[in-house]
Amino acid sequence: MLYYIQQKAKEAESMRMYDLILKKRQGKPLTKDEIQWMIREYTDGRIPDYQMSALLMAICFQGLDKEETYELTMAMARSGEMLDLSQIQGIKVDKHSTGGVGDKTSLALTPVVASLGIPVAKMSGRGLGHTGGTIDKLESIPGFSTQLEDDTFEEQVNSIGISIMGQTKDLAPADKLLYALRDVTATVDQISLIASSIMSKKLAAGADAILLDVKTGSGAFMKEESDAMQLAKEMVEIGKSAGRKMTAVITNMDEPLGMAVGNILEVKEAIDTLKGNGPDDFVELIETLASHMLILGGAVKDFDEGLMRVRESIQSGKALDKFKQFVAAQGGDTKYIDHPELFEQADIIEEIRSEQDGFVGSIDAQEMGICSLILGGGRETKESVIDPTVGLVFSKKVADPVKKGDVLATIYGNDEEKVKQAVLHFKENYHIIEEKPTKPIMIREVLS
Amino acid sequence: MLYYIQQKAKEAESMRMYDLILKKRQGKPLTKDEIQWMIREYTDGRIPDYQMSALLMAICFQGLDKEETYELTMAMARSGEMLDLSQIQGIKVDKHSTGGVGDKTSLALTPVVASLGIPVAKMSGRGLGHTGGTIDKLESIPGFSTQLEDDTFEEQVNSIGISIMGQTKDLAPADKLLYALRDVTATVDQISLIASSIMSKKLAAGADAILLDVKTGSGAFMKEESDAMQLAKEMVEIGKSAGRKMTAVITNMDEPLGMAVGNILEVKEAIDTLKGNGPDDFVELIETLASHMLILGGAVKDFDEGLMRVRESIQSGKALDKFKQFVAAQGGDTKYIDHPELFEQADIIEEIRSEQDGFVGSIDAQEMGICSLILGGGRETKESVIDPTVGLVFSKKVADPVKKGDVLATIYGNDEEKVKQAVLHFKENYHIIEEKPTKPIMIREVLS
Repeated sequence: MLYYIQQKAKEAESMRMYDLILKKRQGKPLTKDEIQWMIREYTDGRIPDYQMSALLMAICFQGLDKEETYELTMAMARSGEMLDLSQIQGIKVDKHSTGGVGDKTSLALTPVVASLGIPVAKMSGRGLGHTGGTIDKLESIPGFSTQLEDDTFEEQVNSIGISIMGQTKDLAPADKLLYALRDVTATVDQISLIASSIMSKKLAAGADAILLDVKTGSGAFMKEESDAMQLAKEMVEIGKSAGRKMTAVITNMDEPLGMAVGNILEVKEAIDTLKGNGPDDFVELIETLASHMLILGGAVKDFDEGLMRVRESIQSGKALDKFKQFVAAQGGDTKYIDHPELFEQADIIEEIRSEQDGFVGSIDAQEMGICSLILGGGRETKESVIDPTVGLVFSKKVADPVKKGDVLATIYGNDEEKVKQAVLHFKENYHIIEEKPTKPIMIREVLS
Repeated sequence: MLYYIQQKAKEAESMRMYDLILKKRQGKPLTKDEIQWMIREYTDGRIPDYQMSALLMAICFQGLDKEETYELTMAMARSGEMLDLSQIQGIKVDKHSTGGVGDKTSLALTPVVASLGIPVAKMSGRGLGHTGGTIDKLESIPGFSTQLEDDTFEEQVNSIGISIMGQTKDLAPADKLLYALRDVTATVDQISLIASSIMSKKLAAGADAILLDVKTGSGAFMKEESDAMQLAKEMVEIGKSAGRKMTAVITNMDEPLGMAVGNILEVKEAIDTLKGNGPDDFVELIETLASHMLILGGAVKDFDEGLMRVRESIQSGKALDKFKQFVAAQGGDTKYIDHPELFEQADIIEEIRSEQDGFVGSIDAQEMGICSLILGGGRETKESVIDPTVGLVFSKKVADPVKKGDVLATIYGNDEEKVKQAVLHFKENYHIIEEKPTKPIMIREVLS
């Protein structure tokens, strides 16, 4: 009726990013339509970065509620290809770790669950960090290839129950764009944004059930256990809303996981673990995660049954056999599995010894990761080339008793100067104390 | 000494916008060096908009402290030319209004203070809004030009004590860039950002003392008096830190200022006021602001003396003479001042009458501005052409008694349909009540 009011009505027809920013700044929730519109327009380049970064910062202060987080996740998941794993038989259980130092979990976990009938159809990345990603570690086995065709990948899972390939698909491109923007605008560490980022990729990857390993402590992204719990809770809620079976396990990352940090060193530790000779904390983690994956995959009725089956698989050598089958199927030389001493070794091997009696009080996981980075074991930028031979192997972990002269860890390097630096950095961040501390607890919480 | 530490030290040498965003997100203050670096790099295009908008949003939540606000203001002021008014004799007192509906203050105020020996060397803008800016209003006097050379401008101030020119200089370009970004990222209404934006331009404009008219109420940017107080306080602090004499007056903008809204209608009201026939609220405002400008300019010792001098100037005709001298000096036809009935008039003049007895309860200033906009009296975009003849003139203001059939206001327009819409919009936002309300107080606070 009124010219002015007509004009206003016309403006209201098309959504405006400005209004969404203002709404969030004022602490009001965005609707499903608004979130879908925003992700579509941003992915297509019709919303400028400067508006999206303002909204992201407002989210850091005002948060996202459960519905907003779910809608954001779904909108990002649907922004690209949604993988169809229907050609693979059985309940597909995916696993995701929020990452830490010495995290070789997938290497040992996947053959264990595959040996127990859970199909493993995993796409992995390389990623930046203190060591390489799962793909880098697998590729340190001579001959091993992760560049598979889709058909080969599916056929291999159907025939031997396990395949891991490098991620080639454009999964959740909206997340990729948003993450890149968050990374340069100091808006990464907001729990709902992290949850939706992880879950958008997991949902696009097509699994029926998802096990989350949410790490907490000095070497994890979530330093505080309460934050890790909140992140786990939000991811489980998103997955369930999307019709997935979900379990999240909160695990310790205050000290490095297991004894080894570094690519080949971790592969060897994973092989040892599959042979029944893994370090206590890593074995406990593998057993727990594998048991929950068996539950999610419907292979066992409860945790106790899962644990029994997992232990049996390792003790009997079934898990190791599955790993060798997997390595062989992807072109890897299995004699390295039988004889890990064949793996290439670093030139310089230096033992660090204790200068006093006492107990290991703390090992800063983050800083031990930096030791690996100093030695050349990780990527600082996408272009960095990883040296697979370098790293650290601990002899003593937190709460272990130590005598003066005992070896605390062994450093593996190929450059005198870098080894010197790594040793100094190690000593600054590895602490011996007089009183015996309490032993760290690996499994903190389980949510499902 | 250490490769890794050396690398970190190297990174630390050059500032990174990321770190500044994170710091502010965490609620920590930015240093003078950081703010100067940031404004320089942003103005030169080396910091992308998406980082700046994230920082601006973080500022909306975490604020800026007194030092940060001052340093931001100075960095923006110095991002372009700093005007040098030293060729103009006397203490230059600038005046700034935060804007409102029916704000023709500069038109009447500047001749009053100029007539009392305060040099007026003012640059004004056109601006977007319900009516034009001071420049638009002055240009509605036939012949009047605001396009002056710098020399002419200075000479005119030295000879007759007053000149107003259109802003041609690139004052505070960093503020211009930042404001444009804030405008599209919902980060405009943060008090320290507003204070630094206004003050950066005022400091670059070169005056020795600044009087701020900070408006509060429905038609003002600051709806809440407490926000207006905070804004005034911050601007006064910035100005003092920069060595300027400062006074801020908080004034009412809950109802429109004076009786007239619209370009020529407001010019006529300003002329009436200079002739001693102004509406009460506008006269009170002019007397108060002028008295404070006289104090700032060292022309009087206190407010009472200032008020006496201001009233004397208006009553004696000195202020009106100064206005005519000013209009003549800039090419305007002074017979329009003597005979305002000569001004062009709108074709359609429609009286709005009360449908009941009672009192004027409220006149929403913002919505009355929109009436003027509907009629064609303002700019919706930079390209809009203003119709100088349209607008509204009130006959009754808040708390005035009203009888059924009394004229409440007169609408001036040139388009039947627009007038109809304006009348409807007026009626929705002009309220008659039964009980007499308290009369609005024009002058709320004075800070110096």
